Amino acid sequence: MKKKWQKLDYIFHPRSIAIIGASANPIAKGYDYLKGHLEFEFPGEIYPVNPQASELFGLKTYPTIRDIPGRVDYVMSAIPAKPTVEIIDDCAAKGAKVIQIFAAGFSETGEEEGIKLEAELLSRARHGGIRIIGPNGIGLHYPKGRIAFARARFSREGGPVGCLIQSGGHAWNMVSSGSIRGIRFSKLISFGNACDLNETDFLEYLVGDPETEIVVGYIEGVKDGFRFLEVLKEADKPVIIFKGGRSESGMRAAASHTGSLAGQDSTWEALFQQTGAIRVYSLEELIDVALAFMYTPKIAGRNVAIIGVGGGASVQAADECESAGLSVPLLPREMQEELKTITPPEGSSFPNPVDTQGLWRPAEFSRTIELIAAWDEVDMLLFHVLVELHAQFKGRSALDSIVDTLTLAAKRVKKPMAVVLQTFGSPPGMSKLYELQKGFIEVGLPAYPSVARAANAMSKVLSWGMG
Amino acid sequence: MKKKWQKLDYIFHPRSIAIIGASANPIAKGYDYLKGHLEFEFPGEIYPVNPQASELFGLKTYPTIRDIPGRVDYVMSAIPAKPTVEIIDDCAAKGAKVIQIFAAGFSETGEEEGIKLEAELLSRARHGGIRIIGPNGIGLHYPKGRIAFARARFSREGGPVGCLIQSGGHAWNMVSSGSIRGIRFSKLISFGNACDLNETDFLEYLVGDPETEIVVGYIEGVKDGFRFLEVLKEADKPVIIFKGGRSESGMRAAASHTGSLAGQDSTWEALFQQTGAIRVYSLEELIDVALAFMYTPKIAGRNVAIIGVGGGASVQAADECESAGLSVPLLPREMQEELKTITPPEGSSFPNPVDTQGLWRPAEFSRTIELIAAWDEVDMLLFHVLVELHAQFKGRSALDSIVDTLTLAAKRVKKPMAVVLQTFGSPPGMSKLYELQKGFIEVGLPAYPSVARAANAMSKVLSWGMG
Repeated sequence: MKKKWQKLDYIFHPRSIAIIGASANPIAKGYDYLKGHLEFEFPGEIYPVNPQASELFGLKTYPTIRDIPGRVDYVMSAIPAKPTVEIIDDCAAKGAKVIQIFAAGFSETGEEEGIKLEAELLSRARHGGIRIIGPNGIGLHYPKGRIAFARARFSREGGPVGCLIQSGGHAWNMVSSGSIRGIRFSKLISFGNACDLNETDFLEYLVGDPETEIVVGYIEGVKDGFRFLEVLKEADKPVIIFKGGRSESGMRAAASHTGSLAGQDSTWEALFQQTGAIRVYSLEELIDVALAFMYTPKIAGRNVAIIGVGGGASVQAADECESAGLSVPLLPREMQEELKTITPPEGSSFPNPVDTQGLWRPAEFSRTIELIAAWDEVDMLLFHVLVELHAQFKGRSALDSIVDTLTLAAKRVKKPMAVVLQTFGSPPGMSKLYELQKGFIEVGLPAYPSVARAANAMSKVLSWGMG
Repeated sequence: MKKKWQKLDYIFHPRSIAIIGASANPIAKGYDYLKGHLEFEFPGEIYPVNPQASELFGLKTYPTIRDIPGRVDYVMSAIPAKPTVEIIDDCAAKGAKVIQIFAAGFSETGEEEGIKLEAELLSRARHGGIRIIGPNGIGLHYPKGRIAFARARFSREGGPVGCLIQSGGHAWNMVSSGSIRGIRFSKLISFGNACDLNETDFLEYLVGDPETEIVVGYIEGVKDGFRFLEVLKEADKPVIIFKGGRSESGMRAAASHTGSLAGQDSTWEALFQQTGAIRVYSLEELIDVALAFMYTPKIAGRNVAIIGVGGGASVQAADECESAGLSVPLLPREMQEELKTITPPEGSSFPNPVDTQGLWRPAEFSRTIELIAAWDEVDMLLFHVLVELHAQFKGRSALDSIVDTLTLAAKRVKKPMAVVLQTFGSPPGMSKLYELQKGFIEVGLPAYPSVARAANAMSKVLSWGMG
């Protein structure tokens, strides 16, 4: 017998995709879908559908879905609401099992017309035996399967993070900024109004899916609260959820965005407490925490060693780690003395945070890291580095030295490590930040924009492990 | 009779400055001080002191302070701790009234030697009638007076924000990232260990100083709590304080950074409640809130209109505004109907947040802003814009259209406005962000990296106004 998640696995393995409203106009969603699959090199058949074109990017283009010669497994609709409803029967006739619908203008409008249209959509789909993802979402993104709602400038590399993101904009943001930050996706589903397949279906799928190790979700409302709770309770992977619509105006916005009944926040709070799912409060935090689960999944305890430069920065780092529920233990006297033999104490401070001028002298920095990492009472190491560091050491950029040492340490040190890359916001600083982040990801070192955000993310990994 | 603040005003108006340890080596603090004053075009005499050079950047250089022919009003020491102590008598002999001392290695080390050295420093200074700023701080920054601890890549333009920043690193950060964000400084003092002139002296000065309208501070410890409280109570300007050392390890770091006794956090909390001073928890927040007081000082009430694009982004924006204590009132039915006549409702949503596809059509966006701003129940407008917006409208970048409309609106609309510039972190996005921020500052529109941070900053302005 199939396991529950397997029932939806076919969605991610179409042999052929029809893109209704495929377009050569870069601002059209039908352009993104088409270019995305070409750039991702989708191995099956791609059938662009557009009555105004006979060819798009070298692919024969069909006036309607009926004109496609072969069988169509999966349909992506990038056309408006009404015409989408009108083609459902044709999709079913072509054997399509699933349609993802980008168009808004359904129940989320709150108007009778849109509500009726959605009911009609669902009724036709049920009748034709076709499942719906959406409407009012941007559909699937599955790098390993070469299915894309976004273009290849976003990473084609797959990974362990499975996402259910109700909002199309947040889905786009998750893939764009998440990829830059180092998140690699198993599957991402943006499901909008969820008129048919809903958040619980996708949650159940991702919780079961062997390609997914970490589940993250952005959810505005839940159709079947009881089942959602049950699936969460049974999950044996971390599930991180950003619930949109906590406040009165947020709930109102959720209703007009995806037609969702957001639910009282106290109900949600109880759900998080009962299930061990991890609650976050913004998309940025969702990315931070997913990053921590991906790169530092095993943290043995709450003790962090903070290493960087700057007295004020060290004070702030210590406060922020403790606020996030981490501990910053005092290094033993002997270790502090040993650190002073590595780097002269003037202008440095070793209790933890370790504020050391040795940071840009590779031999000193490297020995400092080794010594601290070897202490049993340290569970993780957090580095803070100012990207706009203009200092030179022996004719070499101090920043480059720091980065080299950290890169080596990331390969050698067995304890969880993260780095905070701080910039003043100058253009050279920001492009350097991008480059450094990219290099660190390659050696498995996650980067955060502030100590507060790094500490919060690591603390949430710990809470899950202990929950 | 002089007012209290006037007693310290002479510090900021030296006719001549000696820079001990002036250097041509760009990583030396004596380089920053010297180049800073040259680039800022300090109008008085600058005397570089360095026994190894006869000339630095075209300025005659003296082996010791005694060799300087003229009178020296102000001394900046960039040499180590011991030699600094040794030149105090010479400084006094040259008539210097103040010395700022960069060197660490004094009481903050917690070691007997450093503590003695600081006592010796203070005793010599008292004896010679010279005041000390520091040690272990980076001293003064006063753009209007052309006094600089940093180079001219940081804004030379003066402004209303006066800062007392105990940490040198945070002072540098404040001037660097603060300038990029749009903060303009009256005076900034980085006073480190505060062995003589201390936080209360500078607070009293800035609270009285007519050039300062907003006082911001980073403080690790207070020497004279009672007087500090009194000065805060009497302040008739906003005073925003980031207190470093809230946690046990943060207090330990503060002690080893500036030798400060951080004080129990509950004492500080009481102080904030008694005085109406505004508490913030990071340097980033200090900058955010200072920015809001500078650009949107007068907000009549808590009602915000949120305008941008994206359903999920709107939900998050509404939740974040309400979490920060703002209200997001429902736009009246008639106004929503009128907005629908401006921009077709499909894919848009008008209740507030206003998620409108009209954003990049200048006429529509502009009318939308006018209409909403004219509603009595709206006290401020918050825009959220994705910098990596690749859309085009009529052959023009949608982003450029949005920016133009916002720039015009910033000049016309009388209500407080702020903009959130969101990026995915791509290099083009980040350099665009810098450029947009610069343009917006010129028209008086502050930019924040997230709705949460903008809302928090504006909410703190409101709390002060109502306090």
